[in-house]
This record gives sequence, structure tokens and C-alpha cells, in this order.
Amino acid sequence: MTAMQFQPSADFARQLDEQDELSAFRHRFVIDDPNLIYLDGNSLGRLPRRAADRLAQAVHQEWGRRLIRGWNDGWMDLPSRLGAKIAALVGARPDEVLVADSTSVNLFKLAVAALRARPNRRKIVSDVFNFPSDLYIFQGIIDLLNQGHRLELIPSSDGVSIEPADIRAAIDEETALVSLTHVAFKSAFRYDMAQVNAWARQAGALTLWDLSHSVGAVPLRLNEWGADMAVGCTYKYLNGGPGAPAFLYVRRDLQADLRQPIWGWLGADRPFDFSLTYTPGDSIHRFRVGTPPVLSMVAIEAGLEILLEAGIDRVWAKSARQTEYLIYLFDQRLAGLGFSLGSPRSPACRGSHVSLRHPDAYRITQAMIQAAPGPQVVPDFRTPDNIRLGIAPLYTTYTDIYRAINRIETIVTERLYEAYPAIPQGVT
Amino acid sequence: MTAMQFQPSADFARQLDEQDELSAFRHRFVIDDPNLIYLDGNSLGRLPRRAADRLAQAVHQEWGRRLIRGWNDGWMDLPSRLGAKIAALVGARPDEVLVADSTSVNLFKLAVAALRARPNRRKIVSDVFNFPSDLYIFQGIIDLLNQGHRLELIPSSDGVSIEPADIRAAIDEETALVSLTHVAFKSAFRYDMAQVNAWARQAGALTLWDLSHSVGAVPLRLNEWGADMAVGCTYKYLNGGPGAPAFLYVRRDLQADLRQPIWGWLGADRPFDFSLTYTPGDSIHRFRVGTPPVLSMVAIEAGLEILLEAGIDRVWAKSARQTEYLIYLFDQRLAGLGFSLGSPRSPACRGSHVSLRHPDAYRITQAMIQAAPGPQVVPDFRTPDNIRLGIAPLYTTYTDIYRAINRIETIVTERLYEAYPAIPQGVT
Repeated sequence: MTAMQFQPSADFARQLDEQDELSAFRHRFVIDDPNLIYLDGNSLGRLPRRAADRLAQAVHQEWGRRLIRGWNDGWMDLPSRLGAKIAALVGARPDEVLVADSTSVNLFKLAVAALRARPNRRKIVSDVFNFPSDLYIFQGIIDLLNQGHRLELIPSSDGVSIEPADIRAAIDEETALVSLTHVAFKSAFRYDMAQVNAWARQAGALTLWDLSHSVGAVPLRLNEWGADMAVGCTYKYLNGGPGAPAFLYVRRDLQADLRQPIWGWLGADRPFDFSLTYTPGDSIHRFRVGTPPVLSMVAIEAGLEILLEAGIDRVWAKSARQTEYLIYLFDQRLAGLGFSLGSPRSPACRGSHVSLRHPDAYRITQAMIQAAPGPQVVPDFRTPDNIRLGIAPLYTTYTDIYRAINRIETIVTERLYEAYPAIPQGVT
Repeated sequence: MTAMQFQPSADFARQLDEQDELSAFRHRFVIDDPNLIYLDGNSLGRLPRRAADRLAQAVHQEWGRRLIRGWNDGWMDLPSRLGAKIAALVGARPDEVLVADSTSVNLFKLAVAALRARPNRRKIVSDVFNFPSDLYIFQGIIDLLNQGHRLELIPSSDGVSIEPADIRAAIDEETALVSLTHVAFKSAFRYDMAQVNAWARQAGALTLWDLSHSVGAVPLRLNEWGADMAVGCTYKYLNGGPGAPAFLYVRRDLQADLRQPIWGWLGADRPFDFSLTYTPGDSIHRFRVGTPPVLSMVAIEAGLEILLEAGIDRVWAKSARQTEYLIYLFDQRLAGLGFSLGSPRSPACRGSHVSLRHPDAYRITQAMIQAAPGPQVVPDFRTPDNIRLGIAPLYTTYTDIYRAINRIETIVTERLYEAYPAIPQGVT
């Protein structure tokens, strides 16, 4: 990224869009409501046109006509075929990634395996920014194993970032596992993964990254950065469809040493032998469990192909520029209106969304998702005061960002949000 | 079932079809190849026409246009909405069933919960007929807990049935859990569930049934029969689509006592509070884990609606009659050709498929799935010598059965199967 001067006009936004070398990729997605500014691709990515076609084929041709024979025609390989494509996006080898289960189930499998691989250590290091489901999974494992494991959560002093020194200090000879979300779901704070991996390796601990808010948006070089394990979801920047199955990554030379605890038949060495005794597969396949949900899986492939074609480095370059532009407009237009920036200012420490904090964030969000006056803007609200604006460079335009900030400014200066109820007790 | 006389002619099969009060339901499914006799609905059920429509709507209208708002429009309730419909098919209350994860993951969750609810007992009772994935899951749990649990498998003396006396003898004061597949995947042997539940209850053990080969085909009255827990898949007789998510059942008054070990956010009491500490939900929702795969879930609903409309008692009455008819034709036409019947003769001890055993079963199966000469018949081969013929009464016709038996007879009497290779070493 070269530092660049932005300008505050609508014309300038249009100019940026005209210069955007990725602009053609927007047409790969179904986008048919010009009045909708969708800034929630970090929660649910848009529908790739080819995903709809591919799914129709899977339903009518494969399920409808091929029936059970679909398993031999390609369904059985979906977990590894999709995994190989994700591997290319995260800097891993094709045989190190699988699509299976949900992010939480995958985290359970790998975290249990990691703790069993470090039987004399009792500490799991994570942070207060981690997605709660990840922390819940660790709490459940600690309760299940009942061996005195403990979860240490690194705090944040400013609610935006985690101090590297605090991470370094937390990782010690007692640490079995360091598990962090690479890009934090609220603030978009991004870790220096290579650095954390190095500290963990030095201390003899394993690392397990949640890439849900990273994959498809920021550069990832899992092999080069020495990551041991990772999980992530496919329905955000990968555009894989609502609740689409998750992925997991295990470094090749660790696979044989890790025993995941859910011994489903498709993780067995030879599932169709129907042997009465489980023998784990000798590769990434040992991390499979049950029969994959084919329809939700076939929908994933088109989004991966678009990202591979666009190239993750170009996607990230645009993301960094767009979030910088958003923050520039924020400084110009919103900073004096009771907002504070809830995300790091440096793109090197940031993912692909920007969090704006405001005491009336809940009501402002309600006003944004109404269509009139002005365009409808769909962000995410995250308790207690975050308006999360997601940048999905494959389809988010600079004009989208410009119009969204305009609309937020109008809502606040004209106090339009006061027409909406305050955050209800217990409804977050 | 009244005993009835069958006749061996094609005309008689046609007559049975004409008298079939469920025949109209066949048209609810996509069936467009008159030369294909599909007897594998017990592996993958056919595509309901409405499932295709519903899925297209979910893709284009919901994902494509509503985007993230789809979660508020109904996606979040899919696990319980589908669960309530399955509850009506299995004789449970609507708040006792959920659709989530895979059968193996659900079995893991509930079996761990059961063992922890019986902390002073060390025995899991199952049988050699259980689907291997179920046994693998138990083996994995035993390995994980490392508390000296053991798995006792009731044998079968004839490869077709399990002796009730053997089950009774296996369930004792040491037994924490009795977990069986209600209808065995190879022989279709069916347990007297109420009887087994009574024995378990008497001994203080919990029961966990795998209904994968029962649900949608045979009568189930989980509440009335005193079942504690159950799991099952939705892609066989429920016609939910390839690899569609599984379901789980937990008796209402047990729910609060069972702690499942995979603490994902959607099993938490208030997931959108994003609290850093897990508190389990106070109902069946505590057995949820991660975000549901929406597309694979919406495909399930149409099949459930067809079954509810047809009525499970009528479906079962037709299934019993069709399997009886199949066995009648087997006796007439195949019994002298090296075949033996691999399923119980009494419908009271049988599910909705019939297993034919033959030393050349693998080669015969290969010949059956070829289209010429004669119709293409799709069964399942199950190692070492089972040809599994599945009856799905919503769309299987008597003429299908008649033609299939004819074709098998031709393949064996004319030795057409000899054109196919013997079962390869290790390819089963």
C-alpha cells in the first residue's frame, strides 16, 4: 500500500471505482437491488451466480437423476476437493485442508487432539476478542476432560487491539495450546500470525487459528508462517452460502500425531470395509466424521473459484484501500458526531471490516436498514455499541462506502435514529 | 397385516399397484427414467419436487436477495421447525427433536452426555449389527474419557437376528448406556424397542437409538416406548437430500440433566449476548452446536411434509406388504439359485429393506446396475455378500419389485454376472 490522498466527494468515489481492476468481479454475483448497500459480507457473503447454477445441477441432475450414484460421481470427494481450493487461498498444501462439519465442531476436534498431544501441559491461551463460540468450546473441553486445564484470556486495554507483549508473556512452558481468531470479529484487530506461531513453537505449544474473519479477505500463508492447525467458516468472505460447512487445516507433519476424538466412519482408514473396529485414516481424512451435507457443500465451490481467479493479494490490496477510504470518510464526516473508531488504524493490524462505535449504535443500525429516506444500508450490530461495516472487495464499491457513510451522517445529524427503540433488555 | 396370497405374475403386480392407496404420492417425486428401478431409497431417498422448488427459493430469494436478513426470516428456526415435524413421525413432542450436525456427531454428543449422567457405570451395550460409525464413536469416546469404559457387542448366531435373551442378559447394573440401531443396516432386523427400553430402565441404564433405517419407514413411538435418546439421518426414507443434516431426540425430562460436550454458541442460553462464558440453553436447544447448513436443511422439509400427509401407519402397512411380496417372489424365483434370505421373515422383526445373500453378490450387483439387457436396477451392495433391496413405499411400486426380481433371476440363470470382476481385494 502506498499512502494516498483521498477526497471527500462522490465524484472521487466514482473515480476510484473506475480505476478498480477488480470491478468486473462484482458481476459474478447476484446483485439486483440498486437501493441496497450491503456491508455485511463479513457475516454472509453474497450469492455467486455460478453457485446457483451449480446447486440447481446438483439437485436436478445429481440427486434427482443420478441418485445414490452421485457419491461415486464426486460427492465423496467434496471435502478434499473444496479443501484443496481453500488451501490455495491460505498458503497450505492441498492435502492439509478439509471441508467438514461446523467451525465449532472442527475446533472441538482439533483442540481436543492438541491437548492430548501435550499431555503434561494444562494451559490454553486465548483472548477476550475471540468469538465466544470458540471460548465455549474450550470451556466444554476443560469440563469434559476434567484434568485441571485452564483457559487464560489475554485482555485488551483499549477494546480495539491486543498488545503483542501480553501474548508473548502468556505463552509459557505450561501452555499446551494457543488458539486465537486471526481477525477479531468485533474490532477487526489482526494478529501477526507468524510472530505468535514462533513464540508458541519456542515454548513447545501448538497453535490453532480461527480464520473465519480472515479467509478470502486478508493474506494467509499458513505453511510459511508455521501454523499448526486452523479452522474457519466458508460463508463470510468465501461466499459459500448460509451456514455452509466449515474447513479445517492440519500441518502435514502433525497429522499422524493428532487423534481427533469423534471417530466417525468417514475418518476411518477404509470406511466401506464396515469393520467393527475403528482405524483412523492416515492423512487429513482422519479429521472427517460423518456424511457431508452435499447441497451446502456444492454451493461453496463457485465462490472459491472466483477468489482464486481474482487472486487474494489483489483482493487484500483493495480491501486495505477500501477500509482506509472508509476511515478517511469517518474522520471527515462522523468523528464529531459521537462516534469513535472501533478498529485499528493501520491496515497491517486490521482485517476487512471496520467497526464504528456509538452509544446509540443499536438505534442507528435500525435506521440504516430501513430503506427510506436514502438507500438501505445493511451492516451488523454487535453488542453493546458496534456498527460493523464489512468490506468484501469482490463486490463492495467505493461508492457503496461513500453512500453508506453519507447515510450514517444523515441518520445521526437529523436524529432519525430516535424513531427507533433503544436496545431492548436482553435482545442484543 | 392380514396374511394374503400373492401370485407370481406381472399382472398381479399391476393389480397390487392399482389397489395401492398411496400410489399418488409417487408423483410428488422427480421420477423421469422409466428404465430405472431404484431400490436404494434406504441409502438416498428420491428428490421431492417441492424440495427442488423450496431450495431454488432459498437460493435466489433468501440468500440472493434477503442475504443476512434470512436468519431472521426463518433460517435460525430450521433446526427446531424441522425437528418438530420429525417429532410427529417418531412419536415425540415437538420440543424433543432437533435437526443438527451429522448422525455421528449427534451420537457423540448424546453418548458422552449419557456416560457422564451414569458416572459409576462402565459398560456400553451394543451389537454386531450396529452401523460401524456408531461403534467407532463409542470406541473414540472410551479412548477419550480413559476411564475404563468398555463396549459389549451382542453377537448374532445366524447373521440375521439378535436373540432377545442375549440383550436382556447383557443389560446389567454395570450398564450405563444401551445403544442400538433400531433397524440393522445389513439384515433389516428390527428390535422391539419398548422391550429393550424397559429392560434398560429396570437396570438403571439409558437408551440411545439410531433410527437411520427406521424413521419414515416403520412405526416409532419414542415417548410411548420409553426411549431416552435417539439420533437418525434424514437422507434415507425422509428423502432429505444427499448427506442432509441429522436429527437428535432427547426425552423432555432428561434434557436438563444431560450435558453434551461440544459447547457451540447456538447451544448457549443467549448466543447473541456474546458472553465470554457458556451457559447451556434450558431446552432441546442445548444440543445445538454451530451455525446450521441452511441449504441442506431447507431441502429436508418437503420430504417430511409428504410423509406427514401420507401418514406413517399407511406407509408402514405398504412397506410390510411390499417386503412380504418381495420375499414371496424370492421364494418362488431365487431361492434355488444359490441365494439365501438375509432378513427376518416376520414383518414384526423387519424394517423396510430386504437383504439377499449370495456368494457372487458383488458381481450380481454390478450386473444389476447395468442398463442392458433389461431395466437398470439400483440396489446397495454390502460386504461381503449382501444385496440390499430398499422399499420406499412413497414411490416404490409392486411392479418395481416384480421387475427387479425378474432381472436378478435372469442375471443368475443366464450367468450374466460372470462378465463382471469378482470383488476386488479391499474394495468393498
